[in-house]
Amino acid sequence: MVDVLVDGQPDDRVPADDRGLLYGDHLFETIAFVGDRAPLWTHHMQRLVDDAARLLIPPPDPALLADECRRITAGHDRSVVRITITRGSGGRAYEPPEVPVPRRILFRRPWPEHLERQQRDGLAMILAPVRLAAGGELAGIKHGNRLEQVLAASAARRAGADEALLLDHGGRLVEAVSSNIVARVDQRWITPPLERAGVRGVGLRWLSSRDQLDLESAEIDAGQLDRLEALVVINSVAGIRPVIRLDDVSLPVDPEIRRWQRLWNRLFECAD
Amino acid sequence: MVDVLVDGQPDDRVPADDRGLLYGDHLFETIAFVGDRAPLWTHHMQRLVDDAARLLIPPPDPALLADECRRITAGHDRSVVRITITRGSGGRAYEPPEVPVPRRILFRRPWPEHLERQQRDGLAMILAPVRLAAGGELAGIKHGNRLEQVLAASAARRAGADEALLLDHGGRLVEAVSSNIVARVDQRWITPPLERAGVRGVGLRWLSSRDQLDLESAEIDAGQLDRLEALVVINSVAGIRPVIRLDDVSLPVDPEIRRWQRLWNRLFECAD
Repeated sequence: MVDVLVDGQPDDRVPADDRGLLYGDHLFETIAFVGDRAPLWTHHMQRLVDDAARLLIPPPDPALLADECRRITAGHDRSVVRITITRGSGGRAYEPPEVPVPRRILFRRPWPEHLERQQRDGLAMILAPVRLAAGGELAGIKHGNRLEQVLAASAARRAGADEALLLDHGGRLVEAVSSNIVARVDQRWITPPLERAGVRGVGLRWLSSRDQLDLESAEIDAGQLDRLEALVVINSVAGIRPVIRLDDVSLPVDPEIRRWQRLWNRLFECAD
Repeated sequence: MVDVLVDGQPDDRVPADDRGLLYGDHLFETIAFVGDRAPLWTHHMQRLVDDAARLLIPPPDPALLADECRRITAGHDRSVVRITITRGSGGRAYEPPEVPVPRRILFRRPWPEHLERQQRDGLAMILAPVRLAAGGELAGIKHGNRLEQVLAASAARRAGADEALLLDHGGRLVEAVSSNIVARVDQRWITPPLERAGVRGVGLRWLSSRDQLDLESAEIDAGQLDRLEALVVINSVAGIRPVIRLDDVSLPVDPEIRRWQRLWNRLFECAD
């Protein structure tokens, strides 16, 4: 069985001059599959095409990607597929080629067994010592420049935590390392705006589009953390996970979070 | 003759799961060689080792890198060598392996013929439409997250310019796409601080360490651009290049810039 495809060919190596490697000049999507179906496929493809336009990378063909995903997920109950679209090779240093020929790299990974436990029991989180740069052109995009997340994930592990909460340099909450966040503050469910830093997550977009969900986009600054009534992280693979501890503070699992999880589970159960 | 070495082996491909490709999880140096000697070698190695410590990447061995550089530059009059040090493969998504095994990738490139002309005749520059994010943990480091530079270089080409001047989101000058900058404003030579964004360049470090050079570190904001008396860009490969046009404004080449260029040329001429 094939777990890696590079431009449609079973392979596990890429040219050393790929711009994805040289400059982080790429986009990626990490997608949950049930069998060979991805319940959030349309959202992922929409973001990939939108982000490619913002980065001036020729958009990939969703039908071709769907076909390649089927090839690598066939025969597996559940999978995680990472699709990476790089700007390919060529250009003159930072300057990209006038007509880039993107390279697509697909990996299948086994389904992470710990996610179900985390959805049920919740996560221990730290406030990351790493602050995010903010205000540039890349905010919101799921691009390949992820060193800040690498450093924050490394700090979480050293602290024995499952995740880390990231602030920008101005002390405003942005997101978790690999998830968006929704916080309950003053009895409102709030998610931070992502215009200056962070990734517009597919899981959050799905949640925001549900009916009967009063989710506000508003800034939350570090000074409000002691008024947190609940905190939840969401991403399109790990789903909805409550945070039960932030540094030394315990947080309750609000019943509303359990309701969201039921909606989420239905999405995945009905996918088959 | 070998132009690419991956972990010391002649090769031009890398594993598709290299973290440099997945997350831009790497450092690099681009180094000018005269024959098999790099006049600024010590500065490059110092930065590489310092930056590796900041990113928690095990430091590479400069003696080993020197040996590999000799192998790929042998027989060439002049070369540019890019050394890339990735965090290697492994880890759990963003979370790096506890003990990373870095991968080193060395490329030799022919010497760019246009640099001498640009040093003499100067550059046409635009104010980049792309703003840099600022304030994070990565400021100053020559890391592999370079999408902002890719977009700015692309904008410069579309405008028919040689380079682009980058501001942060607050409207402060930071650097050029591939160079640091020194500006003459109110009869002072000023270079922007790099604590919040930008790369600490080896060329600038070399220039700053010369005697009899009154180079101040100070902020320059976009509002001061109409008081620019001269502008120069510097990097360790392209050397010192005057800017003769910024958008529609012509700039003179200050005689002091020619003096710096003579110092630079001496450094490279004496390297043989």
